[in-house]
Amino acid sequence: MMIAPAVELGIDIRVLAEDEGMSAQLAATAVGDYRDLDTVRRFAADVDVVTFDHEHVPQEVLRALVADGVAVHPGPDALRFAQDKLDMRARLTELGVPQPDWARIADTVELQRFLDAHGGRGVVKTPRGGYDGKGVRVVSDATEAQDWFSGLAEGDALLVEELVPFVRELAQQIARRPSGESVAYPVVETVQRDGVCAEVIAPAPGVDAEHAAQAARIGAEIAEGLGVTGMLAVELFQTDDGRILVNELAMRPHNSGHWSQDGAVTGQFEQHLRAVADLPLGQTTPIAPWSVMVNILGGPVGAAMVDRIPAALAAGADAKVHTYGKAPRPGRKVGHVNVAGADLETTRVRARAAAAAFA
Amino acid sequence: MMIAPAVELGIDIRVLAEDEGMSAQLAATAVGDYRDLDTVRRFAADVDVVTFDHEHVPQEVLRALVADGVAVHPGPDALRFAQDKLDMRARLTELGVPQPDWARIADTVELQRFLDAHGGRGVVKTPRGGYDGKGVRVVSDATEAQDWFSGLAEGDALLVEELVPFVRELAQQIARRPSGESVAYPVVETVQRDGVCAEVIAPAPGVDAEHAAQAARIGAEIAEGLGVTGMLAVELFQTDDGRILVNELAMRPHNSGHWSQDGAVTGQFEQHLRAVADLPLGQTTPIAPWSVMVNILGGPVGAAMVDRIPAALAAGADAKVHTYGKAPRPGRKVGHVNVAGADLETTRVRARAAAAAFA
Repeated sequence: MMIAPAVELGIDIRVLAEDEGMSAQLAATAVGDYRDLDTVRRFAADVDVVTFDHEHVPQEVLRALVADGVAVHPGPDALRFAQDKLDMRARLTELGVPQPDWARIADTVELQRFLDAHGGRGVVKTPRGGYDGKGVRVVSDATEAQDWFSGLAEGDALLVEELVPFVRELAQQIARRPSGESVAYPVVETVQRDGVCAEVIAPAPGVDAEHAAQAARIGAEIAEGLGVTGMLAVELFQTDDGRILVNELAMRPHNSGHWSQDGAVTGQFEQHLRAVADLPLGQTTPIAPWSVMVNILGGPVGAAMVDRIPAALAAGADAKVHTYGKAPRPGRKVGHVNVAGADLETTRVRARAAAAAFA
Repeated sequence: MMIAPAVELGIDIRVLAEDEGMSAQLAATAVGDYRDLDTVRRFAADVDVVTFDHEHVPQEVLRALVADGVAVHPGPDALRFAQDKLDMRARLTELGVPQPDWARIADTVELQRFLDAHGGRGVVKTPRGGYDGKGVRVVSDATEAQDWFSGLAEGDALLVEELVPFVRELAQQIARRPSGESVAYPVVETVQRDGVCAEVIAPAPGVDAEHAAQAARIGAEIAEGLGVTGMLAVELFQTDDGRILVNELAMRPHNSGHWSQDGAVTGQFEQHLRAVADLPLGQTTPIAPWSVMVNILGGPVGAAMVDRIPAALAAGADAKVHTYGKAPRPGRKVGHVNVAGADLETTRVRARAAAAAFA
C-alpha cells in the first residue's frame, strides 16, 4: 500500500517480497528471504532508503545495512523496541511513560510471585514474534505458562503484565522524520474481537481534550525517546479510572491507522514514505467528523474476493474497499473498508455493511 | 493512475503501454502498438474488460475486439464521437444539446461563407487527433486554414465553429455503467492558459443551482444519448448571456476531473474502473467546500522531478502531489497538485505554491 503514494510522488520504489504475490506484480520486486543478509544486502545496494512493513527483519541484518552506509528507517536501535517486548517495557520505564506493571520472568516461581502481587491474574507474553493475539495468554496460575517456559532458550525470559482494567483501547499514530519533525494523528478507538482488531473509529469518540493531548504526548515521547523514524503506532489502554497506559508499539503503517487512507488529508502509507525519505510531512487533519475502518476478516469461503466486490460497493456508495490480494481463510485479515461521514452511527453502519458483504 | 484503485479493489489489471515507462514497472504490462490489431487482440485475450486512457485506438481495432466477444468500454459506437469532432457535432445536433454553431467545411469557400455569417471569425478544427490546443486555430480569413485544407484526403473535411463569447470554461464529469446507472460530479471551472488546462476549481465558483443542474443534465443526455460507458468529461463554455454550450468531449478520466482524486469521496480513476467493470458507482460528493487542481507544466529544467518534491511538499502540508513519471519539457503536463480546503482563495494559493515548486 506504499506503492501507490510512491508512484504519485515520483519516488522510485522497490519491493523485497517473501513470496510471489500482489506486490510481485511490480517488475521491480525482488523475491527473497528478509532474514538472509546477502539477499537483503543485494537488494539494498540499489536504493537510498530501506524501510519495512513488519518488524521481523533481524537486528544483524539491519546493523549490517547501517554499517554498509544504507539509510535504514526505522533504524535498528529504534526497531528493537518493537521487536522485543521486554526491551520495550524496560525502555518505557526509563522514559517514565505510563504503562501496566510488568516483570521479566524466567520461570513459574517468578510468574506466580507476580500473579500473587496483582490480584492473582496476569498477561504472559512471549517477547518476540507475537501478532494479533498470538504469543499472548491471560493466566490465573503460573502452571498455565509452563509450556512456554519449557521452550525458552538458556538466558531467555517471558514478559508478564498486569491485567489492566481497561474500558477501551485507543491508538495514537505519530510520524517522525530523521531530521526530527513529527506530526500526530488524532487518537483513535480500536475495537478488538477475539484478540484481533475489528474496527477503528477516528477520532476516538468522547475523548476529552486532556486525554487526547495526553495520548499525543505519549506518542511524541516514545517517538523521540526511542528515535523512531517513519510511522509509529502506540496501542493504548484507557482504564476505568481514566489513565492511559501503553500496550504495544508498531513502527510501521498499522491497522489502527488504515482509516487515514480515506479519512485524513495524508494517509499513513504516504506519510510513512515521506517520513522515511525525510520529506516534509503531510497534514494529518481528518476530512470528515468521523471515519470508521472495519477489517474484512476471513472473507468468503469458496468464492474469490473479487466476486464479493459488487455487493460490498453496493452496500454504500461512500465505502472505500481495500483488498490485500491474500487468499481468504477464517480469521485472516484480507482487506478493510473505510467510510468517512458526519454522523458516527450511520458511518459505522455503512462501513460494517460493506465489510459484511465479504463474510 | 487506474492501477492503484484496481489493486485496492482486488481487480487484476493489465496494461498495454506504448513505451516502457512508469506503468511498465508493472510486470503485467505489455508493450506494443495500440493501433495494431494482432497486438491488441493478443492483449485482450486474457482480460474481461478493455478500456483506454486516450481516444486514439482505431475503430477497426475496437470493432474487431467487440466481434471477438470482448467487453470494450467505452464501446466503438460511443468512442467515435470522442474521436471525430464532426461526428460529435452532428450527433449533439440530433440530440438537441446546446453547442456553438458549426459547419462541415471542405474548402476555403465554405469556410469563408461560415465566417461571413458569424462576424468574420471562427474556430477551425481538425476533426481528429487534436489535443491541448493542437489542431485548433482561430481564423478571421479562410486562407488562414489553406494548409489544412490542402492536407485533407479526398472526401474529408474540417470543422468550423463560431467563436463563442464565453466568460469562462466549465467541465461536467459523468460516470455511466453498461447497465445504465450514472452519477454526476459537481460542475467545475477550468482555467486555460495558452490552450492548455492550467487550473480546475471544484465546484465552479458562483454557479447557481440552475446552471449546475443544466450542466449535469447536458452531461447525462450526452452519456445516455451516445451510450458512453466509463467516465465522460464534457467541456463547456459559459457565455456572457448565461448559456452553457458544449465545447469538447472526452470519454476517459480527464484533466478536469483530477481534483476528484483527493477532493471527492470517489476519484475519477476509481470511478472509471467501477463503471467499465459494471460495478456499483461511488459517491461523487466533495470532501471539502473547495478543491483546486493546478497542473505542473514543463517542470524543472536540468533537474529530476523528484528533486523538487521536498519543496513542493514543504509549500503546503495539505498539497497532494501527483507526478506522471514523464521527462519534463516546457509546456508538457508532467503532474498536478490537488488541495482541498474551506476557503477558495487560500486553497488556490496553496495549490499554486506547491505546483510552482516544480517550475
